[in-house]
Amino acid sequence: MAWNKVAVIGAGLLKFGELFDKSYEQMAAEAFQAAIGSVDKGFDPAMVEAAFVSTQRGTLWGQEGIAGNTVPSAIGLAGIACTRIENACPSGSDAFRVGAMAVASGVHDVVLVIGVEKMRDKSSDEGLLARAASGHPVYTRGESAPVLFAPFATRHMHEFGTTREMLASVAVKNHYNGARDPYAHFRNEITIEDVLSAPPVCHPLGLLDCCPQTDGAAAALLAPADRAVEFTDRPVYIAGFGVATDHPYLHEKASFVGLPATTAASQRAYEMAGIGPGDIDMAEVHDCFTITEILDIEDLGFCEKGKGGVMSIEGDTALSGRLPVNTSGGLLAKGHPIGATGIAQLTECWWQLREDAGERQVRLEQGFALQHNVGGRGSGVSVVNILTRNER
Amino acid sequence: MAWNKVAVIGAGLLKFGELFDKSYEQMAAEAFQAAIGSVDKGFDPAMVEAAFVSTQRGTLWGQEGIAGNTVPSAIGLAGIACTRIENACPSGSDAFRVGAMAVASGVHDVVLVIGVEKMRDKSSDEGLLARAASGHPVYTRGESAPVLFAPFATRHMHEFGTTREMLASVAVKNHYNGARDPYAHFRNEITIEDVLSAPPVCHPLGLLDCCPQTDGAAAALLAPADRAVEFTDRPVYIAGFGVATDHPYLHEKASFVGLPATTAASQRAYEMAGIGPGDIDMAEVHDCFTITEILDIEDLGFCEKGKGGVMSIEGDTALSGRLPVNTSGGLLAKGHPIGATGIAQLTECWWQLREDAGERQVRLEQGFALQHNVGGRGSGVSVVNILTRNER
Repeated sequence: MAWNKVAVIGAGLLKFGELFDKSYEQMAAEAFQAAIGSVDKGFDPAMVEAAFVSTQRGTLWGQEGIAGNTVPSAIGLAGIACTRIENACPSGSDAFRVGAMAVASGVHDVVLVIGVEKMRDKSSDEGLLARAASGHPVYTRGESAPVLFAPFATRHMHEFGTTREMLASVAVKNHYNGARDPYAHFRNEITIEDVLSAPPVCHPLGLLDCCPQTDGAAAALLAPADRAVEFTDRPVYIAGFGVATDHPYLHEKASFVGLPATTAASQRAYEMAGIGPGDIDMAEVHDCFTITEILDIEDLGFCEKGKGGVMSIEGDTALSGRLPVNTSGGLLAKGHPIGATGIAQLTECWWQLREDAGERQVRLEQGFALQHNVGGRGSGVSVVNILTRNER
Repeated sequence: MAWNKVAVIGAGLLKFGELFDKSYEQMAAEAFQAAIGSVDKGFDPAMVEAAFVSTQRGTLWGQEGIAGNTVPSAIGLAGIACTRIENACPSGSDAFRVGAMAVASGVHDVVLVIGVEKMRDKSSDEGLLARAASGHPVYTRGESAPVLFAPFATRHMHEFGTTREMLASVAVKNHYNGARDPYAHFRNEITIEDVLSAPPVCHPLGLLDCCPQTDGAAAALLAPADRAVEFTDRPVYIAGFGVATDHPYLHEKASFVGLPATTAASQRAYEMAGIGPGDIDMAEVHDCFTITEILDIEDLGFCEKGKGGVMSIEGDTALSGRLPVNTSGGLLAKGHPIGATGIAQLTECWWQLREDAGERQVRLEQGFALQHNVGGRGSGVSVVNILTRNER
């Protein structure tokens, strides 16, 4: 049976990029205003009872050195309940899930889910990703994100004949989409040749196989499904979600051609929504690297294991393809401000389901959109949310 | 109308202290085992569907450099959903609230709430509290926690005649209780004279007015109230909770004799529970400093504003007093491992309501216990949970 207890009544973000001129608080305020402005029938900010703030390094990072619980004061809502959610790369998508449970529990009516991340204000060796591993006996010895994902690419190439061109086709598609998304960090189209000739990062991944470090913020407003009509005549509902963990160390992995947390999280989400992967009209998935999107579309059940590279290079995941993936430009072109990423992906799904996505608009058949992140040490956690425009 | 939708079916912690010999993961595993062992009718760990992990610096801190989402693997539950909750000093109490909403939403049945914090593995200048303010233009310039709370003490003394002895009476009481709590960091009794003659930290607060830095972990198991009987014949229910924020900067404060976040959070919790402060049999409150407990008992409505010092020195908050406060020893004697603190306080409330508190047991009249934290920059966030043994 479908869940559909909670509606997304508004969503928005600010243009992602190197936002040296905006503080953490200003980014939060702009994302909140974007979400308010998106509510069809208008929205009084005083209706927000509780906020769930996703940020991976709010207290250490950025000009203000603040964390989630200071966001209400910064955006004019001092007094409301506020909780920070951190779950590595899926922080934003998990804050969305927690916000949805807060509404479904009957404790809160209107809830704000907001993700903010400043990635660019410090140099890389002092930065978020460097500090995340601080003091660890293994992680500090070269196990950066590209080093963690590259072995999945080589093994996938070895087992399934996936090629560098197939990997590159993911970056080309996502940059094509990003060029059509006014909120994307990078809005330039690229070619397969550009990807293949880019500076190497960690074999076989080159610079354009890797997502950039990007500042950004995004916000969504949730309300009980039976109150959605107060805010909009085009409601979008949360059909289901799932979270799963895995072992965090690479030596504990059973295979290097898939991420079990993604598979388990998506199975839980599909079950809650009462649908299967064939019902999804479009998906925003975690393409921190080109290989990751290929793993994702396999692990989410959109194609057989091993066929993700072929699916990509044949255009099945393009805007006009069988299952458009990362219509926003994805992490590769739109950017990956960690705490904001999931909520920005959900905003894209919300636009698509409301047919507000402009030249990126996909054809809707079943009325379901899927959003996915995977991350943490050893890709040890994944979150999947499924939205629908179907009343059920 | 009372909430009572969720039951606490188990809770436990490990002895707090300087746990240099235990890793973050080991502390988590021991707290989980303590919670499992506390379930009257036995508990199969495979029943846990989701975990909410409170830790303030899990990714930066401790030997393993890991965060919340790696806890399931470490405690034998790889695969389950897991979310990290961070909310400054109330992190643990807020994880408890979020776990309760996850159960009440119908999404999850049996939920683990677990708090873990390593505070002692690095020197103070590299430490959690130092890094929390890293890069901030004000906080890095001397605004440590004692410096933030001391002005509340001097102002309270000025406005209400509160004395150093009244402050000291809080530390004396909490050490008396801690000496009777096998889980407390400090288990020695102290005198008023000890507190007054301790080395000064920030006038008027001396060393014994300040809580120590302590390693620790604590865990609780939650289930739907209507399933409690499967686990125990002595269930404890979550009667209500509340969270509130405030402005984080001191120059925005309307007064220095109270913490508005505490008052607002408690009013929400009382309303949800359908009770008032007079119905509380015992309370675990946030005594990071002696002045804080005095502010707390006023802000929570246990006495008039300004009377907290008198209430303390007259013994009303002692084990045998009108309203026993911090029977566990509080942060001052039991310790304050940030992510674990709230869940450890809730464990004490759970023991008291089940009359399992040994020589610390208080007399139960109404059957309600209150747990409270306040924290963050400028004490900008507070969480209050109310537990009850009353079926309603």
